[in-house]
Amino acid sequence: MYRIGVDLGGTNIAVGLVDENNTILVKRSRPTNPKRSSEEIADDIVALCFEVCEGAGKSMSDVSNIGVASPGIANCDSGEIEYTNNLPFRCFNICEYVRQRTGVTNVALANDANAAALGEAVAGAAKGTSSSVMITLGTGVGGGVIIDGRILTGFSFVGGELGHMVIEKNGALCSCGRRGCWEAYSSATALIRMTREKIEEYRKAGKKTIMSEQERITGRTACDAMRANDEAGREVYEAYISYLATGLTNIVNIFQPEVISLGGGVSGEGQSLIDALLPLVHSEQYGRAHAKKAELKIAQLGNDAGIIGAAAL
Amino acid sequence: MYRIGVDLGGTNIAVGLVDENNTILVKRSRPTNPKRSSEEIADDIVALCFEVCEGAGKSMSDVSNIGVASPGIANCDSGEIEYTNNLPFRCFNICEYVRQRTGVTNVALANDANAAALGEAVAGAAKGTSSSVMITLGTGVGGGVIIDGRILTGFSFVGGELGHMVIEKNGALCSCGRRGCWEAYSSATALIRMTREKIEEYRKAGKKTIMSEQERITGRTACDAMRANDEAGREVYEAYISYLATGLTNIVNIFQPEVISLGGGVSGEGQSLIDALLPLVHSEQYGRAHAKKAELKIAQLGNDAGIIGAAAL
Repeated sequence: MYRIGVDLGGTNIAVGLVDENNTILVKRSRPTNPKRSSEEIADDIVALCFEVCEGAGKSMSDVSNIGVASPGIANCDSGEIEYTNNLPFRCFNICEYVRQRTGVTNVALANDANAAALGEAVAGAAKGTSSSVMITLGTGVGGGVIIDGRILTGFSFVGGELGHMVIEKNGALCSCGRRGCWEAYSSATALIRMTREKIEEYRKAGKKTIMSEQERITGRTACDAMRANDEAGREVYEAYISYLATGLTNIVNIFQPEVISLGGGVSGEGQSLIDALLPLVHSEQYGRAHAKKAELKIAQLGNDAGIIGAAAL
Repeated sequence: MYRIGVDLGGTNIAVGLVDENNTILVKRSRPTNPKRSSEEIADDIVALCFEVCEGAGKSMSDVSNIGVASPGIANCDSGEIEYTNNLPFRCFNICEYVRQRTGVTNVALANDANAAALGEAVAGAAKGTSSSVMITLGTGVGGGVIIDGRILTGFSFVGGELGHMVIEKNGALCSCGRRGCWEAYSSATALIRMTREKIEEYRKAGKKTIMSEQERITGRTACDAMRANDEAGREVYEAYISYLATGLTNIVNIFQPEVISLGGGVSGEGQSLIDALLPLVHSEQYGRAHAKKAELKIAQLGNDAGIIGAAAL
C-alpha cells in the first residue's frame, strides 16, 4: 500500500505519493492562489492526489491513507482547519472533504511545522528516535515536537510554538505582538535586522565593514562577511549564535529530545552552524554533568519534510 | 486492589496506601537522614510500605503496584535513581530493591516534581484533563508536564525542567549556573531577593516602606505590604507577577495544556495570584484571538501530590 502526503502552503500545494520506506515516488504541485475559496483550493488538493497516483501507475485503491499538512490551527481530532492567516480556511473540514472525493477513509490533518517535524523523525535527521524537535529558521522560527513518536499539539492544537517563547523579557517586538520572543532574535528576519543595525552602528562610528558594500542584505550577509574576516560580520554572527543557543538550550531543558534538527534558510550554513552552537548548548544545559546530551543536526528532508510527515500521520 | 506511593524527599520519606479513587487511606513517614547509605534509606522505604499496609489492615498481596517519586535523575525505564544531589543514590535500582523485598512485581519510578504533576492530573487541579503542567514556586521553580496522561521525561529523564528556561538573556544568575532562568525570577527565593533589593532602593532614595520594618523578609513580605497599600510592596509584587506571567505564557505557547496548576509556597497567595496572572497570560499568548485558553489553577493536593502521583505511575 501507498500513502499520500499533502503539503498545503501559502504559495504552493505540493502532494506526494509515498511508499512504505517513506520515499516520495511521485510529486506534483500547483499554485495555491490563496485568494480563491476554500473549496477551490481543496479541489486542487484532491486533483493532485489523483495525479500522483496516476503518475505512479497506481489507483486510489492502492492508497491506505492521506495526510494533510496545513498552516494555522489544524484540529487533528475533528479534521478541521480552524483558522489560517494567509488562506481562506475557517473551520473547514479538509479531512471530510478529501475523504468523500477520494474514497480513502483514513485522512488525517496536522499543522505544517508539526508535519515537517514528524517527517524528519520518520525519515530524516531524527530517524530512529522516539523524541525529537525540529526548528525552522526562516521568516519566523517554527517548531515541531515529537514525543514517543507523536506530534505535540496541545489541547488547542496550537502547541509547539517554540518561536514564541520569550528569551529576552521586554526585548525586540515579535510578529506575534509579544516582546522578546526567540523568533525576534533567531529567525532569518532577525538576522537581517541585526546585520542592518550593525552596519548602521559601524557607519556612525566611522568604522569599516564589507557588509556596507552589499546592495542587498540577506541572512547570509553576516556569515559571508565573517568568513572574509570582517569584524562586524563576526560580531553579528556571534550575537545571533548566542541567541539561537539560548533558545535551543531552553528546548533541551524542557524536552530533553534525542535530536534537535534545524531547517529553514539559516540552516543552509550547515555543519559550521552546529559546530558553533553545540559548545554553548552543552555548557549551559541543565544536568550537564550527568545527563545524556541531545544531538543537534541539520534537517535532511528540505521541502519534502511536510509531504513525508503528512503521509506518516 | 490498593496501590502504594512513596515520596522520597531530602528531609522525609512519606509513604501512602492509596485506593482506586486516588485517596490516601494510610500515610506514614520517617526522616530520610540523607547521610546514610542508599540501602539503609531504601530499607526504610520498604519498611514504610509494610507499615501502611498494616495500618489499613491489609497485606502486601492486596497491593497491585508501588510507585517511587525521587529527586534527581530517575530512570523510569531501568528503575534506577541515576543521580541525586542531596541523597547518596548513584545508579541505584530502587525498583528492583523494593520489588525483591515486597514481592510486588509492578514497581515504577519517577522524578518527584513529575510525580506531583501526575498527582494533580489524576486527583487534583488538573483532574479529568489529558494534558497539564504543574509548576512549583518554592526554593526553586519545579515543573512537571503531563501529555496524554503520561509524564514528559525526555530521553535522558531530566526533561520538564521548566524553571531552567531563560526568559531574560544575561539576566540574574540561577542556581543551575545559567543566567536569566525563569527560576531566578519566579521562585520564592527570587521574590525574597527582589523584596530585599526594593527595600534597599527605597532606603537609598530616602523613601519609606513598611517592608523595611520587618525583622525577617519572606516570600510573603511584599504581598502583605501591597495589601497594606505600601507602594514598594506593590512594585515588587507587580514585577514578580510580570516575570511569572512571562514564563507561564511561554509554557502555554509551548504545550497548550488544558490546565496549569501552581504549587509551592508562593501559591499560598491563592486565587488573587491567579487573578493577577491570568490577564497577562491571556493577552500575550500565541493565537490568542483564535485558540482555546489554558486554565490556571492553584494546585490542590499539597504534599500529598507526590504520593498520589507515585501510586498512579
